[in-house]
Formats: sequence, structure tokens, C-alpha cells
Amino acid sequence: MDHKDWVWQELRKWSVSLGFRYTPLEEVENRLTRVRTGMEKQGIEGLLVIQKMNLYYLSGTTQDGLLFVPLDGKPLLMIKRELERARAESPVKDVVPFKSSREIPSLVQSHCGKVPSVLGLELDVLPVRDYFRFQGFFPDTQFKDASPILGEVRKIKSLFEIDLMRKAGAIGMKVYQEAKEILKEGMTEIEFGGLLEAAAKKYGHEGLLRVRSLNYEAYTWHILSGLTGGIVSQSDSPMGGLGLSPAFPVGASLKVMKAREPILVDFGTCFHGYQADETRMFSIGKMDQKFVDAYEACKKIHDAILEEIQPGANCETLFLKTVPLAEKLGYKDSFLGPPLLQTRFIGHGIGLELNELPFLAQGQSYPLEEGMTFAVEPKIVFPGEGSVGIENTVMVTKDGYEILTPAGQEIFQV
Amino acid sequence: MDHKDWVWQELRKWSVSLGFRYTPLEEVENRLTRVRTGMEKQGIEGLLVIQKMNLYYLSGTTQDGLLFVPLDGKPLLMIKRELERARAESPVKDVVPFKSSREIPSLVQSHCGKVPSVLGLELDVLPVRDYFRFQGFFPDTQFKDASPILGEVRKIKSLFEIDLMRKAGAIGMKVYQEAKEILKEGMTEIEFGGLLEAAAKKYGHEGLLRVRSLNYEAYTWHILSGLTGGIVSQSDSPMGGLGLSPAFPVGASLKVMKAREPILVDFGTCFHGYQADETRMFSIGKMDQKFVDAYEACKKIHDAILEEIQPGANCETLFLKTVPLAEKLGYKDSFLGPPLLQTRFIGHGIGLELNELPFLAQGQSYPLEEGMTFAVEPKIVFPGEGSVGIENTVMVTKDGYEILTPAGQEIFQV
Repeated sequence: MDHKDWVWQELRKWSVSLGFRYTPLEEVENRLTRVRTGMEKQGIEGLLVIQKMNLYYLSGTTQDGLLFVPLDGKPLLMIKRELERARAESPVKDVVPFKSSREIPSLVQSHCGKVPSVLGLELDVLPVRDYFRFQGFFPDTQFKDASPILGEVRKIKSLFEIDLMRKAGAIGMKVYQEAKEILKEGMTEIEFGGLLEAAAKKYGHEGLLRVRSLNYEAYTWHILSGLTGGIVSQSDSPMGGLGLSPAFPVGASLKVMKAREPILVDFGTCFHGYQADETRMFSIGKMDQKFVDAYEACKKIHDAILEEIQPGANCETLFLKTVPLAEKLGYKDSFLGPPLLQTRFIGHGIGLELNELPFLAQGQSYPLEEGMTFAVEPKIVFPGEGSVGIENTVMVTKDGYEILTPAGQEIFQV
Repeated sequence: MDHKDWVWQELRKWSVSLGFRYTPLEEVENRLTRVRTGMEKQGIEGLLVIQKMNLYYLSGTTQDGLLFVPLDGKPLLMIKRELERARAESPVKDVVPFKSSREIPSLVQSHCGKVPSVLGLELDVLPVRDYFRFQGFFPDTQFKDASPILGEVRKIKSLFEIDLMRKAGAIGMKVYQEAKEILKEGMTEIEFGGLLEAAAKKYGHEGLLRVRSLNYEAYTWHILSGLTGGIVSQSDSPMGGLGLSPAFPVGASLKVMKAREPILVDFGTCFHGYQADETRMFSIGKMDQKFVDAYEACKKIHDAILEEIQPGANCETLFLKTVPLAEKLGYKDSFLGPPLLQTRFIGHGIGLELNELPFLAQGQSYPLEEGMTFAVEPKIVFPGEGSVGIENTVMVTKDGYEILTPAGQEIFQV
């Protein structure tokens, strides 16, 4: 055992004392078994896992590297930086160093005795330039898109994962409790958002929310007050807010929050990569009655969806039921956005990324399954005035659901 | 003029009163002229700009959409969401809506009267799945990688851009001034980091630092104290820190900061998309002399590089000079990382992204040019003990340099 091994064995113990949880071997093995079932169906002999969240999911580490998963045989973790840390973090047994991606074919060859004739890659995110490089490395190999397989496996969460999501939700609850002490009249949206983030980080919130997309960026500080709550922006969300500049035109702005305005706080938290998404309403003094009423309508729609959550419920149907309900409640033209800009989803799968399966949305006709986790977020938008909404992250249980974001659902008035 | 137009004209005025700066027409025209020169050299007839920071650079908006740039003729901005906001933000005149990417070929055709026979795409970041889709949309078109053209144009900053970077640097200076009031014994690294971020956001810091890569994530809270300063992680950086979990194994951790330890604060700020990167040292009580001495060495190396900055200076040479200087100062085995894990760069270009041209690094043999901006960051790492460093963002002027990060360079002791 050399000096560096010793250091990382000690560091691992120390990190656990600071709250680190490492992915257990059986967790990775269960995930790999399910991935291999998908590979077999698609005729994929080997899978190269490159994208950071897939790598973490299947290896327990996010050190700079790749995981090769053969259909038969043991996985191979190839690490560029930092090798000893990856060895300490990952339950995968075969961990080898590399310096250049040119070495990948020979590493795979010497691990498996051959290179796969059909190789799976994550074509939904892999850049073209890297794809061409892999074509050069594996000239006789056919490539297939393995992202759908990985998405299908990841959509069902294990108890280990659910526990991490519960912890993310618990951080959110603490933040919403402290928020009432933080919010003051005369503060800007971004000042409030920054202090909420500082509160969340203190409890281990990881700051970055991850989303699987080239251009779509997630962020924690989606704080909209009054007028800014009526502004639609780039994101597929009922309201985007003003943001801080044309380069970041979403979320909290330098607008000062005023008394009686609806203050919408959509604050995602992240623990060990797992996210919980949650929205609550705040006001300085009593919120104008129009918004109180609209918030009550959001809660009714939210509760109506939750009542129907169970394995087998159809995701599109769940969404489609909310539209006439919102209309019945008097919010036809403001539900999920202003006229012509209304979004067509009421929920999105969540876990390591904010846009996972399932989507409770138009065109997404498939059943809920036990172990799925998603955020439900009815929102009502009045352009030029403000918006309200509620959002909780839930998991599908054997015969219903569990809320993973337990903050109180009252309007937080200061 | 309909209702929504009116709203965005008013919103634009209001956003300016809150500090928004919109990209002027002449700025976009100058950039487009330089891009077209590159397109002509490569035989590219049309360019589809998709990646968010390139889109912002060439259109002034980051609304969800694409910009088509013909070699001859006016650019066409195609927007999915939100059209009216894009029209208010962008100086580009031709702005059209679309709902599905399938409409792109016909929008291009009707704008130009033809589709280009050679089309430039950003192949360094464009996902393979999107590339295949474009191949279907433009069956008779040849595709070329246009990213090198855009990188070359973006590496030279205009006065408009420099001014935004100066503002990012000014936010950093305020944060470092306030940091002395924030830092307390017994705080964790992440608690300190969260409060620094909250301070920065109050002044308009945009929270997300952007980097051009599938897996490399940037973040503001790179706060390392004592032991964690000696930990290398996934990033190509002399030290990565412990981070908060295996899912986010870099930057500030839940470690409590102690007296006399070196506390390294590498805190990037972002204003209107433009970043300034900066590192300063803190301590609670007097920092142990070993680290004070090493910090003085970092300052010497930093000053030696700055002295040589002028148009024409070779980027690789600048890096290579630092290695013997560090050795002469007694830091051969700790300069830029611990033994076997030392990085091979001393500076990185910065602007809208953290990994732009130029790189002051091994293998990067090209001259500095007036208007380039980059961060210079000599760092010294002692595994198991801690690390020190200094970092400033500079621009190359006609005959020297200007520092864009004006915070004081003393050790901030509380």
C-alpha cells in the first residue's frame, strides 16, 4: 500500500464523518443488471458510459473518466483524474488509469479480450466531435443510442436513492422554515434568493441543479415577485421571471419585493446529486386576495393529481384532467401560463436530473410505476400582476404516493 | 402594436433601470463580420448557431432558439420561446417564431431563397442525435465544424465586453471586502462559500459559471481550507477540494475552518454572462509561515508572468517560464499540484465561458493578441496540509495588460 492509497482510505473515512454516503456495491450491481437487460434487447454488446450523471449512477463516482459495461463480464472504470479518489469512491473493482481517449479501445480489448461489434453510446448528449473520434477508435463497430435504456432504468428509484431525495427534501423544509426570518421588505428578489441558497448550502445542498440538455440550465433561485411573476422566458415553464440580464433572463432579479405582492419561491435542492423540487408562496403583509384565491385553486389541482397517483395511472391522463379542473375553478386563461404561452405539462420526473421520466404532459401516454419520482407543479400566471403556485416532489408507492418535500403548504406571511 | 409588444417595450425600459445592458447593433454587426471572414475561408455558406453562449454573442439574446447566419445576407433569428422577449432583447431585425426544429429548413429557405450547400454547426458541443436530425433536414448539404471559427472570433474581446468583465471584477472586489466581515472561526467551508455567493448575487452576480464541455461543471464556491486544499479531484486544477459528496466532489465541503490554516477562496463572478476569475487567501489568525512563504512565491510567479504580457508573447513560453521559476523558489514538487498530479497550465482564457482561448499551457504555442482576456493562477499544493494561490483576470492591451480583478492582494486575515 503506497502513501496515496493510505491517504484516500483515511480521507474516505473522514468524508463519511462529514456526511458523505458512498454508493454500495449491491446498488451498482442491481442497476447494471437492469441496464444489461436493456442492452440485450437492443443487441448492444458493450456500453460506454460517458455523461457524468450516468457515470455516477453506474459507478458511484464522478471522477473524470468513463465506464465500459460489457453485456457479459465485469465493468471497467477508466479514470483520467483522479485515479485514487475514484478507487476509493467506486464499488467497481476494475479501475484503470488513462491519459488520452486514444487508449480506450486497447483498454477495452485487454479487459474483455475483444472490442464489441455493437457499442452503445449516449447519443442524446454526446457531442458530434467525440462521436467521430469514437468511430475512428472502433472502425469495425456499429454504434447505437443507449440513452433510452439508461433513462428507462434510472426512472425507477431504489430505496437508497429515495433516501437521498428525502434528505434533499428535508433541506428544503429547513430552508422554507428559515425563509420567514430572512425575508424583509425592501429586499431584492436575488438578495432573498442568495440568502436562501446560503441557508440550503449550510445543510449540504450542492448548489448546481442538473438538467439533461445542451442549452437548458437549471438554478435554485427562481424567486419571482409581483410583476416578474408574469414574465415568460426561455424555459418551458409557466413563468420565467426577469432574471439578471439578457445572458441570464430567468429567475430572481434586482427588483425590490413589495408588500401584498405574491412572492413565488421555486427552490430546488440537491443532496448527493439527488434533487427535490418545491414551490411555496410568500408575502410581506397579507397577499392580495386575488392571489390567495388562485393559490387555493393550485392547491386543489395539486391535491386532485396526488389523489390519482398510483401504479398504472396514465401520465397524459393525469395532465389532461387538470385542464378542465382549472377551467372550472375560473383559471382557463391563466393556468400554466398566460394565453398563447401556456405550457402543456403539470409534472416532470426528477432524480439526478430535472428532466427525467416520467412527464405528466400532453403526448406522454404511459403508466406510472412504483418507485418513480416526479414534481407536480400547478401554477397560475397573471401577466403584469404576478403568479402563484405550489410544487411538491413525490414518489409512487405500491398503492399511492409519498411526498418527499414536507415543508408546510400555508402561505408564508412575514 | 398589440398588447404583448407594448408589455415588452415597457419591460425593456424597466429592466434597463434595474441595470440590464443590451448588446448594441454595431457590436453584433462587428462580430458577424469577423465570423463571416472565417466562414469564407472554410467555404461555409451558412452557419446555424445553437449553443447558448454563441447565440448570445451573435444575437444578444439567450431565448430558446437558433440563429442562421448566411455568408451573404442578413441573419435570421428563429425563436421557440419567448418570441416577444427575443425581439425586445436582440438587435437582429429578422426574428421569426417556430415550434418544431422540422421547420428550420423551410425558414432558412424562405429567408435566403435557398438552403446552403455547406452548413457550419458547432460540432464540439452539438449532440449526435441533433446532428442526425439536421442531416435529415438538409439531405443535400455538407456539414462542417464551425466551432473553431467562433472560438477564434470570441477570443478577442470588444470594449463593450471588457466593460462587462470589469463589472464582474468589481463585484468580486466588493465580495472580498465583505468576506472579512463574514468569515468566522467554526464556520464550514460551504457556509462561508454560500454567504460569499449571497453577497455577490446582491450585486448582480449571475450564479452560474459557464464552461464549454459535456461533463466539466464550474461553480463559484471553491473554498478550500487546510487539508481539503491538498485534495485533487476530477477537474484539471491543481487542487479540487473535498466537495459535498461523490456526486459533487469539488469545492467547499462541510469541513470546519480552523485558525492558522490557509483558506483558499477561488471565487468566480459573472455579470451579463461575462466572467472574472479570482483567487485570494484568507486566514483566521495568522497563517502558518510555510503558507505565507508559499503565497509570496505565487505572487512572484504571478508578477513575473504579468510583466511579460503583451501582444506577441507566446502562450506556451509564458507557461514554461513559470516551471523553473517555481523550482528556483523551492516549490518544484508542489507547484500546480502534488507530485504526479501537477497540471500543465498557468492560465486560461475567460469571457462567456471559463475555458476559452488562449491557454497559457504546454502545447499552446501561439501569440497573445490585444483584447484577449485570461486568468493567471499560480498555485502551490501541499497534500495533507493545504494550498495557496493567487489568481487575477487580465486583458492584453496594446503594450501590456490591465487587471480586471482589482481586489487587494494581501492575505485577508480575520
